[in-house]
Amino acid sequence: MIILGIDPGLATMGYGVIETENDRHRLLHYGALITAAGERMPHRLRAIYIGVRQLMDLWHPDDIAFEELFFSRNITTGMAVSAARGVALTAVAETSDSIYEYTPNQIKQAVTGVGKAEKHQVQMMVKMLLHMDEMPKPDDAADALAVAITHAHSLHAKDLNRIK
Amino acid sequence: MIILGIDPGLATMGYGVIETENDRHRLLHYGALITAAGERMPHRLRAIYIGVRQLMDLWHPDDIAFEELFFSRNITTGMAVSAARGVALTAVAETSDSIYEYTPNQIKQAVTGVGKAEKHQVQMMVKMLLHMDEMPKPDDAADALAVAITHAHSLHAKDLNRIK
Repeated sequence: MIILGIDPGLATMGYGVIETENDRHRLLHYGALITAAGERMPHRLRAIYIGVRQLMDLWHPDDIAFEELFFSRNITTGMAVSAARGVALTAVAETSDSIYEYTPNQIKQAVTGVGKAEKHQVQMMVKMLLHMDEMPKPDDAADALAVAITHAHSLHAKDLNRIK
Repeated sequence: MIILGIDPGLATMGYGVIETENDRHRLLHYGALITAAGERMPHRLRAIYIGVRQLMDLWHPDDIAFEELFFSRNITTGMAVSAARGVALTAVAETSDSIYEYTPNQIKQAVTGVGKAEKHQVQMMVKMLLHMDEMPKPDDAADALAVAITHAHSLHAKDLNRIK
């Protein structure tokens, strides 16, 4: 089974593609869609739409897993990330109906066994679980791989969180 | 010149299409894209994307004008509307680069001459300016027509607010 993980963001949208079988994972692809702050909003959103569509066309993932958004700080940033996430959902929904999401705590728990793990610990575990030679960069790509792994574990545990 | 006005929303996205020439306006089309609260979010956003793309294909508007979002209340609602607006921007940006937005106060001022006009006054003026037999319904469609008229006035006054 192929899983596409997405860490939504407007400036940087991390993505990671893994193949998972019997709780063993293989890294297929990872990276980030970057949009420049100087670009106009409709262009940035359009670039995200096209980028996510391309990932879907390239990998035909069976399932897609998003990191859930949390806002406490800046409402303007929150609106921008919501827009980017909405566009990514729309791009994914063109060809798939298997869309899930997990909270940061669920991801930390699934990947490290500790709900309050540090970012660095999550990245170390992602590197180990996917047999990578170096730490996944940027952070958003590491987070996207982590949410893909989380979904794989949740499939195993039959504890899925489908987006409603 | 043909202008598409959009009042963004997830449950109800109002739209209105007018033709404007020398500060005279003609109503071409209006209505609302409705998505059911019971539907899953990816489907609702996808429906908005397709609906806005169809409006673009049908009317080939020269310019598109959005009502600007304001949030004071519910952050969950705010995130949903941001997502819907982002998806509508993405759909519009596939074929157009002429995308503008106006605040509720700018719209009230442009349509009624009073920045703090009541909703009902705005709707009355929309009905009159577009020579309609009845009040435009739902409210979101009336708001979409109002923002289209606002953009027409702003073209005249050379006081445009392009989305950055």
